Amino acid sequence: MPVTAKKPLAERLLEGDRNAVARLITWAESGDRRYTKSLQTFYPKVGRAARLGITGPPGAGKSTLVNELVRVLRARERSVGVLAVDPSSPFTGGALLGDRIRMESHTSDPGVFVRSMASRQSHGGLARAAIDACDVMDAFGMDDVLIETVGVGQAEYDVIQAADTVVVVLCPGAGDGVQAMKSGLLEVADVLVVNKEDLPGAHRLAADLEEAVHIRLAGKDAWQTPVVMCSAGRGKGVEKVLDAIDAHRAFLGEAGLAELRKQKRCGQVRLAVGELLDEALWGEGGYSQRVESELAAGRTPYEIANEVRDAVLSGESGANGAERG
Amino acid sequence: MPVTAKKPLAERLLEGDRNAVARLITWAESGDRRYTKSLQTFYPKVGRAARLGITGPPGAGKSTLVNELVRVLRARERSVGVLAVDPSSPFTGGALLGDRIRMESHTSDPGVFVRSMASRQSHGGLARAAIDACDVMDAFGMDDVLIETVGVGQAEYDVIQAADTVVVVLCPGAGDGVQAMKSGLLEVADVLVVNKEDLPGAHRLAADLEEAVHIRLAGKDAWQTPVVMCSAGRGKGVEKVLDAIDAHRAFLGEAGLAELRKQKRCGQVRLAVGELLDEALWGEGGYSQRVESELAAGRTPYEIANEVRDAVLSGESGANGAERG
Repeated sequence: MPVTAKKPLAERLLEGDRNAVARLITWAESGDRRYTKSLQTFYPKVGRAARLGITGPPGAGKSTLVNELVRVLRARERSVGVLAVDPSSPFTGGALLGDRIRMESHTSDPGVFVRSMASRQSHGGLARAAIDACDVMDAFGMDDVLIETVGVGQAEYDVIQAADTVVVVLCPGAGDGVQAMKSGLLEVADVLVVNKEDLPGAHRLAADLEEAVHIRLAGKDAWQTPVVMCSAGRGKGVEKVLDAIDAHRAFLGEAGLAELRKQKRCGQVRLAVGELLDEALWGEGGYSQRVESELAAGRTPYEIANEVRDAVLSGESGANGAERG
Repeated sequence: MPVTAKKPLAERLLEGDRNAVARLITWAESGDRRYTKSLQTFYPKVGRAARLGITGPPGAGKSTLVNELVRVLRARERSVGVLAVDPSSPFTGGALLGDRIRMESHTSDPGVFVRSMASRQSHGGLARAAIDACDVMDAFGMDDVLIETVGVGQAEYDVIQAADTVVVVLCPGAGDGVQAMKSGLLEVADVLVVNKEDLPGAHRLAADLEEAVHIRLAGKDAWQTPVVMCSAGRGKGVEKVLDAIDAHRAFLGEAGLAELRKQKRCGQVRLAVGELLDEALWGEGGYSQRVESELAAGRTPYEIANEVRDAVLSGESGANGAERG
């Protein structure tokens, strides 16, 4: 213990230390620069895990499905990391976290690692932290990483982008089928799940979704989103969900997956650059005072924003340019 | 008509042309640069309207309350602009918009202007567009602008920041009281409304909220968030809600309001700069290709992000520096 404690966290992660997983994710969440340093050590080990995103409206049974997926994956002798993200936390913070902490403490299986994130930090920050958490669990050696979001808002949409395969969970009732069809929910789905298949309306919902999926079908070579019925609460049909996920993975192939991930990494860099510039421009020695006096002079926010942009791009803002993270 | 059509939209806005209101908001929503040009004309007329934000969990009766507030404000001979924002639209798009379009068509009162925004654009973009829409309705001459959000997520939180006074609407049931207290919902509230006061549990909820508000009270001179009970559906107690809003306004005073708005404008500039830089850095001639090849070389996203930041701040990115919006 005294010996391992002195080792860098990234090394402990690669040696299978669960505390290192937790600690690194905490660093990532809080924007601690030690995370980005550590990543340089374990990044070569990132990329092996299959990343599954599970989203859908509240009440669709996402958590139950995730629990069942974990059970079946474990039966297949796959190790599983679970990341539960609640971007709505500025308002609804506590609730989900409570559930998750319960779930975590119930888990004594070393092949499972559960982590929740409910955050008041900026929206972009949460999406970044979700990717980081996946990277950590991936490098730790988890075969699958499940990212579950609580709701279906913009922030959830961004978080779910960390996944290779997105599963959208719906259930009959509350007009979910119609709403899902009108909205963008179908567009992000690689696999559609109709949960609570025993409820009235489940078959109708599945048929409607099938039809909607066929209509939006882009071309012959495009992935055709399957509609899978299950009853996660009764442990029925969960294998079929996993089969559909595997089929999507097979469809992507190695090259397709690599291309998808490259795009996602580019997006991650873009997000990170935005955060870094935001820090540099609005912290000490930044543009805040200049903006205040321009505003006081009656200039419009967009005139001022244009000027700041031009100043930044022409290298006028020297102060923070040299600093490095 | 042929004559007015040739006039700049901003002038038509100031002359009371309702079509100009709609058109300018559409420009703002779509990020059309004609909006920022127009703003320079009408910005001197912005700042007179009282901006009220109304938020709360789904089912609390926000829309009903907004309708009643409009009715009472009209009875007081105040003109009212209403902006209904649904940031959750990437998934739930159509639903709200339908309601709102119905409401809009029912409105033949020239003293009322209703506009809805349900958007798939980026989260930051929606917050920006909400501020713009308020500015347009303000310059048009509306005495009050009501911003209503659908849910209670991070995006709603940002949108509601456009308001001078934030009203949080709750109602008994569904554990809303406890959730609201655990969460940040109380922290953003300048006025707390317990709607559906006839339902069982309403008085208990109000009492709990009163207590929670007293506990978090920062200091003697701080605004003490009032808890107001009403039944918007029966038109009961809505006057009291408005009285509480007026009291908050009076508490702020002219200087307090000016300070609050200055801060919000600074935030708006910061948001706009972020959007402009994002465009400049990742469009044609930007950093995308460099990032791709660095990623291919196995470097971590954050190493690359740091380098891009340094390059930007040192003025290395010449290409887009000269362009102006």
